[in-house]
Amino acid sequence: MPAILPLPGSLVAEAVRVALAEDFGRAGDITSAAIIPADRAASAVIAARRPGIVAGMPFAVEAFRQVDPSVRFAVMLDDGTPVAPGAVLARLTGPARAILAAERVALNYLGRLSGIATATAELVAAVAGTGARIVDTRKTTPGLRAIEKYAVRCGGGANHRFGLDDAVLIKDNHIAVAGGVAVAIRAARAAVGHLVKVEVEVDTLEQLEEAMTEAPDAVLLDNMAPAALRQAVALVAGRCVAEASGGVTPATVRAIAESGVDVISSGWITHSAPSLDLGLDMV
Amino acid sequence: MPAILPLPGSLVAEAVRVALAEDFGRAGDITSAAIIPADRAASAVIAARRPGIVAGMPFAVEAFRQVDPSVRFAVMLDDGTPVAPGAVLARLTGPARAILAAERVALNYLGRLSGIATATAELVAAVAGTGARIVDTRKTTPGLRAIEKYAVRCGGGANHRFGLDDAVLIKDNHIAVAGGVAVAIRAARAAVGHLVKVEVEVDTLEQLEEAMTEAPDAVLLDNMAPAALRQAVALVAGRCVAEASGGVTPATVRAIAESGVDVISSGWITHSAPSLDLGLDMV
Amino acid sequence: MPAILPLPGSLVAEAVRVALAEDFGRAGDITSAAIIPADRAASAVIAARRPGIVAGMPFAVEAFRQVDPSVRFAVMLDDGTPVAPGAVLARLTGPARAILAAERVALNYLGRLSGIATATAELVAAVAGTGARIVDTRKTTPGLRAIEKYAVRCGGGANHRFGLDDAVLIKDNHIAVAGGVAVAIRAARAAVGHLVKVEVEVDTLEQLEEAMTEAPDAVLLDNMAPAALRQAVALVAGRCVAEASGGVTPATVRAIAESGVDVISSGWITHSAPSLDLGLDMV
Amino acid sequence: MPAILPLPGSLVAEAVRVALAEDFGRAGDITSAAIIPADRAASAVIAARRPGIVAGMPFAVEAFRQVDPSVRFAVMLDDGTPVAPGAVLARLTGPARAILAAERVALNYLGRLSGIATATAELVAAVAGTGARIVDTRKTTPGLRAIEKYAVRCGGGANHRFGLDDAVLIKDNHIAVAGGVAVAIRAARAAVGHLVKVEVEVDTLEQLEEAMTEAPDAVLLDNMAPAALRQAVALVAGRCVAEASGGVTPATVRAIAESGVDVISSGWITHSAPSLDLGLDMV
Amino acid sequence: MPAILPLPGSLVAEAVRVALAEDFGRAGDITSAAIIPADRAASAVIAARRPGIVAGMPFAVEAFRQVDPSVRFAVMLDDGTPVAPGAVLARLTGPARAILAAERVALNYLGRLSGIATATAELVAAVAGTGARIVDTRKTTPGLRAIEKYAVRCGGGANHRFGLDDAVLIKDNHIAVAGGVAVAIRAARAAVGHLVKVEVEVDTLEQLEEAMTEAPDAVLLDNMAPAALRQAVALVAGRCVAEASGGVTPATVRAIAESGVDVISSGWITHSAPSLDLGLDMV
Amino acid sequence: MPAILPLPGSLVAEAVRVALAEDFGRAGDITSAAIIPADRAASAVIAARRPGIVAGMPFAVEAFRQVDPSVRFAVMLDDGTPVAPGAVLARLTGPARAILAAERVALNYLGRLSGIATATAELVAAVAGTGARIVDTRKTTPGLRAIEKYAVRCGGGANHRFGLDDAVLIKDNHIAVAGGVAVAIRAARAAVGHLVKVEVEVDTLEQLEEAMTEAPDAVLLDNMAPAALRQAVALVAGRCVAEASGGVTPATVRAIAESGVDVISSGWITHSAPSLDLGLDMV
Repeated sequence: MPAILPLPGSLVAEAVRVALAEDFGRAGDITSAAIIPADRAASAVIAARRPGIVAGMPFAVEAFRQVDPSVRFAVMLDDGTPVAPGAVLARLTGPARAILAAERVALNYLGRLSGIATATAELVAAVAGTGARIVDTRKTTPGLRAIEKYAVRCGGGANHRFGLDDAVLIKDNHIAVAGGVAVAIRAARAAVGHLVKVEVEVDTLEQLEEAMTEAPDAVLLDNMAPAALRQAVALVAGRCVAEASGGVTPATVRAIAESGVDVISSGWITHSAPSLDLGLDMV
Repeated sequence: MPAILPLPGSLVAEAVRVALAEDFGRAGDITSAAIIPADRAASAVIAARRPGIVAGMPFAVEAFRQVDPSVRFAVMLDDGTPVAPGAVLARLTGPARAILAAERVALNYLGRLSGIATATAELVAAVAGTGARIVDTRKTTPGLRAIEKYAVRCGGGANHRFGLDDAVLIKDNHIAVAGGVAVAIRAARAAVGHLVKVEVEVDTLEQLEEAMTEAPDAVLLDNMAPAALRQAVALVAGRCVAEASGGVTPATVRAIAESGVDVISSGWITHSAPSLDLGLDMV
Repeated sequence: MPAILPLPGSLVAEAVRVALAEDFGRAGDITSAAIIPADRAASAVIAARRPGIVAGMPFAVEAFRQVDPSVRFAVMLDDGTPVAPGAVLARLTGPARAILAAERVALNYLGRLSGIATATAELVAAVAGTGARIVDTRKTTPGLRAIEKYAVRCGGGANHRFGLDDAVLIKDNHIAVAGGVAVAIRAARAAVGHLVKVEVEVDTLEQLEEAMTEAPDAVLLDNMAPAALRQAVALVAGRCVAEASGGVTPATVRAIAESGVDVISSGWITHSAPSLDLGLDMV
Repeated sequence: MPAILPLPGSLVAEAVRVALAEDFGRAGDITSAAIIPADRAASAVIAARRPGIVAGMPFAVEAFRQVDPSVRFAVMLDDGTPVAPGAVLARLTGPARAILAAERVALNYLGRLSGIATATAELVAAVAGTGARIVDTRKTTPGLRAIEKYAVRCGGGANHRFGLDDAVLIKDNHIAVAGGVAVAIRAARAAVGHLVKVEVEVDTLEQLEEAMTEAPDAVLLDNMAPAALRQAVALVAGRCVAEASGGVTPATVRAIAESGVDVISSGWITHSAPSLDLGLDMV
Repeated sequence: MPAILPLPGSLVAEAVRVALAEDFGRAGDITSAAIIPADRAASAVIAARRPGIVAGMPFAVEAFRQVDPSVRFAVMLDDGTPVAPGAVLARLTGPARAILAAERVALNYLGRLSGIATATAELVAAVAGTGARIVDTRKTTPGLRAIEKYAVRCGGGANHRFGLDDAVLIKDNHIAVAGGVAVAIRAARAAVGHLVKVEVEVDTLEQLEEAMTEAPDAVLLDNMAPAALRQAVALVAGRCVAEASGGVTPATVRAIAESGVDVISSGWITHSAPSLDLGLDMV
Repeated sequence: MPAILPLPGSLVAEAVRVALAEDFGRAGDITSAAIIPADRAASAVIAARRPGIVAGMPFAVEAFRQVDPSVRFAVMLDDGTPVAPGAVLARLTGPARAILAAERVALNYLGRLSGIATATAELVAAVAGTGARIVDTRKTTPGLRAIEKYAVRCGGGANHRFGLDDAVLIKDNHIAVAGGVAVAIRAARAAVGHLVKVEVEVDTLEQLEEAMTEAPDAVLLDNMAPAALRQAVALVAGRCVAEASGGVTPATVRAIAESGVDVISSGWITHSAPSLDLGLDMV
């Protein structure tokens, strides 16, 4: 299994800082401060309530560290690992106030990112053995794209574009305006550097044929049925990456993958994956 | 119907700024800039593909405005309105580059917030006539809490705490440390100002009885079955707000509401609501 | 005495960062850098020149820590403690350059916050035994509200609203527009969540009577003479919090408190309290 | 009268942005949003309750502009102008919600800055005809230094250093470490550029004599009685700026000024000036 | 000529905001405010003193706009255009204070970016007709990378990686650690998405041969003499992009280009290009 | 030699943070993460390829520290030291991934700042023995002014104004508008505090004579030939600082200095100094 590309630590730290500031507001955890003595210690575990794939552990580590560096946090299950209900993901010990103050931020990141990893892993498992990779889209939560794309990697998926600027993706609207697939590809190639890939969306085999004359780096076969996908893959014949998108669900993804496409993209894994149910229990 | 409390405009503007910066990266929409002439105009509609409740329209308005103030954007359906598949939420006209560049940010906000509003509305509808209000939790996407709580309001729900600082919520862990429900409530009251409410979580009727001796502003009846809830409501007897939480789903929420509780809180409506499927179509 | 609710450490750190950046400008402490060798050590004390109440010690600690973590800073008198002239609040040892560079920021926070705590304590002392609590207002220095409200707590006071969003306060202008006290309270209740308190300002006993029919959480008795306040308190009869405001000075506050009100609010303690005179002396 | 150097507009805008964000919190002005219809218009005046000097009008203008650009705001009295009780500083008309939402931020800036200008003007008036200028210190509210120094200018005062970096001020601690006044001045001159002034604090006439051998740009005569100041001024003999500090009050400042010093610095005008009482009245 | 990919407007606005804040400091343009009446108007031109290529005009437009939107600014020569000494790039009219306050920021951006464009254009001209493209590196001014890469585009060049994250570039150090060229390429491919290109640096033809077995997207032929480059180009045989780097100067670049490489990268055009001499003259 | 005034550490840390964020983008160093094991250690040196003056070492130290605090970094040559080709500036040991990830940011700062220091030192050496100081201008890279001015100090130069706000510099445009040199100086003096110097630009000896009647702190003799400068210096006769500017190159600077001016300013040392060639070599 290839390494899961990690997030830069500074990005994790900043994301946690924002979330803690949001939860602390103007006065912090007033309940704990009012009721719990400052020197009271506690221990806790973070445990799964449902099965899934862990993602977001660096955020949990960082949340407790930012609130109080004296909290000791032991990661039991790393990102990318499957968990069963009841499994302990982490053990922590430290000031009770700090544990309670950081709890929600830690769980919100862990729950959301593990939810994405779990949904991704479900699609990845469904296409096992076919050679197709599951990738994400730009349909991510505003402000959290790089983080959610990391969760996709934890689930065994790979990443599509991170933004409008890191690859060219020519869609139907662009083609209509440019006056054709081929001219659009040529205009894009001329404008971008040699390390920027050019992908083009096609809806029909005719468009695909025209596109292939310009040697794109990838073609996005949008909303094609498995049979059409198979024809498209044959037409591409390994000359570039073939990506399928549209109507991707756990139920449909296997058939799509068996068409021979290289990549299958899903917005659902980021915009609609339910959170993984996790809890922090005092021990 | 009471007014939906709006978000401050500065908060919307800042959230959109962050999301556009994320999507534009270092070079912006290179595909459109390479292929589409700067002076090419276009028109488009934003339409629903599934039924639901609209939320997030101010974000869509702001996204196009920030990219190019010359885009004209006509809101057809305001936040809080139900939509049917195919319904047009907005019509816009302006430079093609700007419309394509802002599209994803606008749709990501609209889709996510409408998804939350739709999930909320589903619970609200299920308890219609019971007098129970559906409220959210702090289980929100990190950094987007105020925004997601606005979406809950658009769906007909109300808001629980916005953070750790705007109300006291005494949970089991606090009670254990404090040495009892009553002493915990007294400690909280003494520490906070006269405009801060004090809510206390209880798991049993015995705890509830002890809590009521200190006249809390609200009690959180956690994971009680409808029958227990009914007893608890009788015990509270209108002296404070009675809130139910735990196991709240569209299937269970009616029975919970019929117990007579005032408020029912659900984490699911923010952490696991699927995005509402919306699209931007060039016309 | 109830615990003084502390400020989140991240808020202190950020406030100190801003103040140091402001004082350092583009080149830092050029006087010390030009004249004092980098390895010269020094010791100093922070001492009171006038009597008062200490507030802001975490800011002083943080200021020296940010400039040079090798400075050792021993707090001798915690926030909330009374000081006599000459009393030593803290002792510190470390690089002379660092001590001189952080001195002004540390003293500016300590002086201002101790000034607020001292003014608050003066009012608190004046009402001792009456059962009335002294609270602040939103008349705080722009950008420093949460910090100044912490200083009020250090002086034995409590906090009113932190902003426009954490409680409803219906004033005369709102009532005029809404068409009456009762309708305004009902509109507010319908729009906000179950943890948001609703307070209403009344100028006359007639308004108070109307307000009480809607069971507000608090009434603000504005600019009433002690005799009128006494009548108002009798009318409220413990059904909600009774707050007095207007014309609150050390000279008048006792009479106001003896009317039986629960809460007395003062803008003077934040917007006009003189700084407490403190100094850093090299030893 | 020389022009009052204005604040950069960007600095005013940013300061107002911070203050509004602080007051709006997560949900903005929930009271007005709940009670007042969005299309309700209102008119108001900002009036003085006490006599003083106006300062901060650009902040008031900006506060209403940021909340709603449709508010029309007419400045009646510019910064630097004296006001009598009841005088109208500004008239405004626009959406009632916007006027109420921006009111507190506008008044907090106006009140605080006018308070500083008023205190400054009191000292300026007391030294009229002597040739002495009243200047501020670095004893300002953290984060608001440039703003408060602007208020000092509005009151007819001038500004001392803005930070540790824009001029050299050699104090007793520096001299002790450097091993003498003269060597300290030489070290400072050698390290800084030709546009950085060097001022040195002296406590005795002997120190002053030594200092003058190095031709400083200014001398700070700290805590000297008027008689000593007169001797010091004679000794300086116009060769550099002579500044007096320490024990400056409205009662003492005239005698200090009559010693012939050029500049008198006061921390009190920024750290302890009471706010000027102003109000916004609906009309 | 392909379109020059523009910078997002928000990025230009933010960069100008930072630069103006830096230049304005705490009090803005005190010279102009002290000497020039607020209502004095002026006209000026921005003119070239040396020949070169214009780049940075959007920054100049934005600088004057931010200082005072009433300044009228007419662009006479767009980015990417050659200028002769004396040529007028822009004409502007407006308040004299605003023109003087924004002048330096506008010229600093224009001068620096035009300098980069001019240096780039010199290399581009030197390789005219060879088919080689001139590209930049990551040797840019910290914080200004996207801006300087835009200037490279204005000079007719193209862009290499924008950061460590948007393409894989395997250098000698990576190869040494990975244990070979081929294994390194395979590890990279497995870890990144289908839109991320993989380039590998090779120093010898042997390394190149090994690299080609893994079908990289590009090879970086580092510090090879023209003869070796020619052999390398023959070996690559159009299967991927061939890039030359090292020792690229206006004197050497033609010979390098004639080897048949596709891309020639130069750090000099960003890290050492002299500023283009421009001035603002009042008229 | 006087001490080189250092940069505040917080400013260095923030500048490095910005540069690393720029280089890491959304996913950090994907090449190293994909190819190099997380626990692989490495050692490296930073060495000069060309002769020059070191500047920027605190930025290099900070870059590696921010990426991974476990990297050990030994500075061999401090800022302000001359280096020969091949000289080792620093030695470092730590995780290979961290060293490779921070390399470019560290070298970009070191190269640029050392380039400025080197150019400055060239002018400083050229005027050795004349008593003239080399100073910079405001022609710096936007956003990096304080940093580049530090590099000038490392090269033995001194600093002119840091911005528009820290000194008055009256130029020809101001004089034209004000109606004369003398009136402009008087207006400036009246508006600014006693620690703000006033410098005036003059183009002719007649203007200089008029300027001297108002006792400016400095005169800027713009674009005068050495003979005219000599006359100007005689006219100033030590009454204020005499600064020469215009046409300053390594070839001309000696003759300018021998005119007897106190200060010679050069924009070239910041806006056009080539980067010093440095490299990081694994060992």
